[in-house]
Amino acid sequence: MAANKYAVESIGTFFLVTAIGMSTIDPGGAGAFAPVAIAATLIAMIYAGGHISGAHYNPAVTAAVTIRGKCFVADAIPYIVAQCVGAAAAAFLVLFLKGGVKIEPKTFVPIPALVGEALFTFALAFVVLNVATAKANANNSHYGVAIGLVVLAGALCVGPISGGVFNPAVTLALGLWGAVHWPDLGPHLFGQFAGAVLAAIAFKIFVKE
Amino acid sequence: MAANKYAVESIGTFFLVTAIGMSTIDPGGAGAFAPVAIAATLIAMIYAGGHISGAHYNPAVTAAVTIRGKCFVADAIPYIVAQCVGAAAAAFLVLFLKGGVKIEPKTFVPIPALVGEALFTFALAFVVLNVATAKANANNSHYGVAIGLVVLAGALCVGPISGGVFNPAVTLALGLWGAVHWPDLGPHLFGQFAGAVLAAIAFKIFVKE
Amino acid sequence: MAANKYAVESIGTFFLVTAIGMSTIDPGGAGAFAPVAIAATLIAMIYAGGHISGAHYNPAVTAAVTIRGKCFVADAIPYIVAQCVGAAAAAFLVLFLKGGVKIEPKTFVPIPALVGEALFTFALAFVVLNVATAKANANNSHYGVAIGLVVLAGALCVGPISGGVFNPAVTLALGLWGAVHWPDLGPHLFGQFAGAVLAAIAFKIFVKE
Amino acid sequence: MAANKYAVESIGTFFLVTAIGMSTIDPGGAGAFAPVAIAATLIAMIYAGGHISGAHYNPAVTAAVTIRGKCFVADAIPYIVAQCVGAAAAAFLVLFLKGGVKIEPKTFVPIPALVGEALFTFALAFVVLNVATAKANANNSHYGVAIGLVVLAGALCVGPISGGVFNPAVTLALGLWGAVHWPDLGPHLFGQFAGAVLAAIAFKIFVKE
Repeated sequence: MAANKYAVESIGTFFLVTAIGMSTIDPGGAGAFAPVAIAATLIAMIYAGGHISGAHYNPAVTAAVTIRGKCFVADAIPYIVAQCVGAAAAAFLVLFLKGGVKIEPKTFVPIPALVGEALFTFALAFVVLNVATAKANANNSHYGVAIGLVVLAGALCVGPISGGVFNPAVTLALGLWGAVHWPDLGPHLFGQFAGAVLAAIAFKIFVKE
Repeated sequence: MAANKYAVESIGTFFLVTAIGMSTIDPGGAGAFAPVAIAATLIAMIYAGGHISGAHYNPAVTAAVTIRGKCFVADAIPYIVAQCVGAAAAAFLVLFLKGGVKIEPKTFVPIPALVGEALFTFALAFVVLNVATAKANANNSHYGVAIGLVVLAGALCVGPISGGVFNPAVTLALGLWGAVHWPDLGPHLFGQFAGAVLAAIAFKIFVKE
Repeated sequence: MAANKYAVESIGTFFLVTAIGMSTIDPGGAGAFAPVAIAATLIAMIYAGGHISGAHYNPAVTAAVTIRGKCFVADAIPYIVAQCVGAAAAAFLVLFLKGGVKIEPKTFVPIPALVGEALFTFALAFVVLNVATAKANANNSHYGVAIGLVVLAGALCVGPISGGVFNPAVTLALGLWGAVHWPDLGPHLFGQFAGAVLAAIAFKIFVKE
Repeated sequence: MAANKYAVESIGTFFLVTAIGMSTIDPGGAGAFAPVAIAATLIAMIYAGGHISGAHYNPAVTAAVTIRGKCFVADAIPYIVAQCVGAAAAAFLVLFLKGGVKIEPKTFVPIPALVGEALFTFALAFVVLNVATAKANANNSHYGVAIGLVVLAGALCVGPISGGVFNPAVTLALGLWGAVHWPDLGPHLFGQFAGAVLAAIAFKIFVKE
């Protein structure tokens, strides 16, 4: 049933954003291990929900998978809504658990932020399409690890220039937290969707099936 | 034979609690790598014992698997007893190996502690049910990694607000060590079982089989 | 089509070198987690591209796989060219994203540098040949993790004596960045190709098929 | 051919001891990441050599696998010799690469050292027997990760009380380096073989096949 898929997309994104907030917002953050906490959560949730919804937990991934033809167009919008609902719920829960901490907004230089987000969202979507939708890789056991490690790598590599977001639902949570001013999130969203669309195009060119 | 299963539940929980004590109690702890040591032990023990007992090593997981119908009700109590025996044995061994160190009890604010425990025990049980009991995921090689990474993530994300326990047998060990005062462990136990039961309900709703 | 393979070799090497530059060049580097970022990127890209090109992303690996007979000789040169093109593009992108940072060249003592590079490039190629080309290991799900962990280990073990490169395309990027003076890279290249060739010979001796 | 197996046991143990020496001996060590470097090397070498020799790389593991009946008795001695030759060669190479560094011998309290070694060598051998020799786990892709993670956990958990060795061939290397005085290594060796033998007995009791 479609509603099950949407619910699982909400749950997975909820835990992803919970992990991001709890591990990156001080006091009580995970310091240098925050990217490890985030990637570990994502990997576990992908393996938990993959057989139900495909475990996107990310509107940019949903866009890429839809372009590639493995997500019904009619599912794409409710998937994205479900992801944003899960992300928003987690955002408020984190604020409650962090006890009203004051979050200082960060600013990023727009062009590097956009490029950093586009680069690793491309990598993320390219990995997803290959490990989770390519016929040659059917029934593998590594898809969750591969996808989670892109997010780990991206957070470590471009975290300082873009925050290492790669996910419009997480971008929404950053806005709700006030971790980045809303208008400053434009380059993030543009980079994320551009990277995902380019990855879908690259996949269609390089993988014939 | 049932006794083999109970013995393996004791062994696995014994090593899990040994890892927790040795890596988190100073002097001689593993510092920021303690969650890594704990998750690594859990993953290895899950792969070692999964084919014998299902590798719960956690009364909350046993509760969730029993509700889902993949653990005989008659096995649930001896499983939990075996886990607690293993945990208690490890608790005393750790005290011996740490040479009579004085452990300062920690206090946690009850509501966030309960919520933190419920959240990640839900995640843990939801992942267990999906990767280890769902028909669509039969014979995968990632179940241990997925389960262990939830515990890694949870320790990093809610460790500061709840201790990152997610396991009533580990809760028993914390009490034996005096790491938390016994009465303060009530919210932990409630959150753990509540999270596990909710995960079993969610699984029954979302996964039809 | 051969062009798809070459393109994927370029993409994978591009992201590998991007991760190396972004995580190791300060400001904005990943500190002690840089080897984790690099290995995570490599693992993800191997799982993404393995079914298309074999996911070498490394001229020394291409040499070893060609000697072993699993890469057409006619493909070896274009593979290496594609890898170097990807590496060079990433090298310039990193300089752009790092905003014109001044990179101080490092010097390594030649013999230990050569030995360090030869040792872990041997290990890398030996692991690749066994996990990705041996009949007994067909259709496994661990090849990417195994290969990436050699690079993680090598960076941690011989990073201080050789930089932990193990890859002539990465060596090219180091030269372009001015991170090592060009003439000082001779021992690196010699060690890398010597290690790879010796690994191919060892594989042919020990694995009969 | 048997000689191939012995050669692979030498190669694998050689790289394991190289990683241990390079990552734990300062200057040029890997600091808090040393256990990660060691486990990563072990995992990679297990996946590389498993199909050839079974990838023991450890006389205690060879003893356990022999008792369990999955290593020919006639192979056990040459396996152990090959492992020690590899370990000794690596020990000398490390001394060369570290440029004649002066290694201060460490002392450990005998009983905790023996218990720590016995505990995690038991865990190591118990995991090996279950993931690599139990019929129910045939053809899995996680055996190397499971085994390597025990060593990672053990190094983090009992490193401060025993050094976290769990391997008589590594014990030999510690003696050659002068990292521990030879007579002080008795409890290590006794604990390692006792743990391995007990694990083989436990396996024979709990796993019927």
